[in-house]
Amino acid sequence: MKLICPKSELLKSVNIVMKAVPGKTTMPILECILIDASANEIRFTSNDMELGIETIVDGTIEEKGIIALDAKIFSEIVRKLPDNNVTITTDEKLNTLITCEKAKFNIPGKSGEDFSYLPFIEKNDCVRISQFTLKEIIRQTIFSIAANENNKLMTGELFQIENNMLRVVSLDGHRISIRKIALKEECADKKVVVPGKTLNEISKILSGEMEDMVEIYLAENHILFEFDNTKVVSRLIEGDYFKIDQMLSSDYETKVKINKREFLDCIDRATLLVKEGDKKPIIIHIEDGSMELRIDSQIGSMKEDIDIEKEGKDILIGFNPKFLIDALKVIDDEEVCIYLMNPKAPCFIRDEEEQYIYLILPVNFNAVSR
Amino acid sequence: MKLICPKSELLKSVNIVMKAVPGKTTMPILECILIDASANEIRFTSNDMELGIETIVDGTIEEKGIIALDAKIFSEIVRKLPDNNVTITTDEKLNTLITCEKAKFNIPGKSGEDFSYLPFIEKNDCVRISQFTLKEIIRQTIFSIAANENNKLMTGELFQIENNMLRVVSLDGHRISIRKIALKEECADKKVVVPGKTLNEISKILSGEMEDMVEIYLAENHILFEFDNTKVVSRLIEGDYFKIDQMLSSDYETKVKINKREFLDCIDRATLLVKEGDKKPIIIHIEDGSMELRIDSQIGSMKEDIDIEKEGKDILIGFNPKFLIDALKVIDDEEVCIYLMNPKAPCFIRDEEEQYIYLILPVNFNAVSR
Repeated sequence: MKLICPKSELLKSVNIVMKAVPGKTTMPILECILIDASANEIRFTSNDMELGIETIVDGTIEEKGIIALDAKIFSEIVRKLPDNNVTITTDEKLNTLITCEKAKFNIPGKSGEDFSYLPFIEKNDCVRISQFTLKEIIRQTIFSIAANENNKLMTGELFQIENNMLRVVSLDGHRISIRKIALKEECADKKVVVPGKTLNEISKILSGEMEDMVEIYLAENHILFEFDNTKVVSRLIEGDYFKIDQMLSSDYETKVKINKREFLDCIDRATLLVKEGDKKPIIIHIEDGSMELRIDSQIGSMKEDIDIEKEGKDILIGFNPKFLIDALKVIDDEEVCIYLMNPKAPCFIRDEEEQYIYLILPVNFNAVSR
Repeated sequence: MKLICPKSELLKSVNIVMKAVPGKTTMPILECILIDASANEIRFTSNDMELGIETIVDGTIEEKGIIALDAKIFSEIVRKLPDNNVTITTDEKLNTLITCEKAKFNIPGKSGEDFSYLPFIEKNDCVRISQFTLKEIIRQTIFSIAANENNKLMTGELFQIENNMLRVVSLDGHRISIRKIALKEECADKKVVVPGKTLNEISKILSGEMEDMVEIYLAENHILFEFDNTKVVSRLIEGDYFKIDQMLSSDYETKVKINKREFLDCIDRATLLVKEGDKKPIIIHIEDGSMELRIDSQIGSMKEDIDIEKEGKDILIGFNPKFLIDALKVIDDEEVCIYLMNPKAPCFIRDEEEQYIYLILPVNFNAVSR
């Protein structure tokens, strides 16, 4: 095999496929990037058996062939080469020579025989959204998946298509995050649970541009994302996702309109009195025109007032400050509305059109001990 | 005590004194910043008993007093306050109230009684150089102090004044780094060993500006740096520093002039084939007009030629690539000169005026096994 590719193009492609190279594995071939130039295109593929990525690389094929190269070493070599054309040549013993200007690297390769190519996904029902939107949806929900694997379904996100709306849901038992997007094209109803890891990795590859589109295909056991010259295929998480609709009441006793930045900065200040792992709630006292935030810990105490617009009853309620911070951080609105029922019921942060809904359970606290 | 200071001023001062707050200590008072407003100035002091820092803070004293506050908590509070005037008030129980706009923090304070003020240093013989120069000297030598404490003297740097020259030396048994600076003012000859930690911390506080000066005083057991509104006092390392002059021969058999960037990039590429802890040398073959660099490891091999200007004999010599990289990184010249004697003798990288000298010992390698 002999290929010539610009270093910049190699670097871009290597960075994309690296996202599906496993850290440690019992199958050494998976730690490789497969370079397939057996047809008329150069393709890089990586696959950790849950997530697989394939991307087409611009370059010239001088001699067709296939080689699998250790992903870590190959990516580091590419990264450090001068910014010029790179020639990759393999011999019959799979020794690979990588040259660029006067630099010559020699590394051993592997035949691609044992490599797992991406599974074939039938392309029915395409969901087309911009890369910007997909990246935003992921950023705005991914923080509330569960970190531990006790409940596999909680480590993924629900992608649900219903009435030409895409709804993305994540939850961890203490909170629920929901984002809704109207789809421009007709789409059959469907429901799948996508692993959080897949979404984290894909969001690093997406350009984030409004004009760049991504096509999403939902199959029985896989989800396929196609964009630019890249295909990302992931397994889905099996099982029925949690029924959340019954938890989403739109009743409320108190409605608060608050400047998001002020609210976030204030909670942020309060949390510096809370040591990691300590479960001190932030106590919020809502009255006409003003919200008092207060935290007491072994380190010290903090109190601050924020101007608000309020409808309905006064309320005294406690929250894990981290949950409020996580939600507020990903909301782009300057002002947010918070809906509360009583000190034991969840609060909702949501916009008018319910494009986003963040449900957060309150924390019990001893009101007397204030 | 009652003080009013702008947040920006507090933040600047806290960041300075934080450099001498110990991470862990058996004397909890040392984990505090001492705020002394007992006279007409506000002074922040920190002291880990090896390094002490005192800085004057702009602000208004409404009521005189002294308080010691937990450095970590106080600095975090200051960092997160809005950008406005901050009021610090203490009561007779040493409770401290920190307010800024609507935010109110309450934290416990300590009396400053047990706090160790900085030792008094008599100001004889001032060495005046720019903050830029001091910062540069440290950056250009600090990398070759020894990390472990087996030989205490190797963890510091020699500051030697001789014939109105300041010479700074560091060494770790494999290499020596030397920087020389002509002093503009008369200065008595002196020799002290300054702890590397002190130099690391002070270099973070120095402005790095040519116009800003720093005054250095060398005493029996201490060194004092004075600049801006800040004093940094450090203990010295006791003992006689290594005699290095006999190692600094100016004889050579081979002289090479090479583009620094090309040389550095090439060694950098070669090292990606060396795993951490692996002691593979980079093998350098110097011939007329060209230098070949070559590395062979379990991962693969690499070879690259660089154009050079050469005087004297051909030579084949091996080096720990890290030592070459460390020295080349801190040299600002576009071209560097390397002086070699034979494959077992140290090489010297130095400029004409010997403002910098980097001595690096070669590594034995089996020339036949190439």
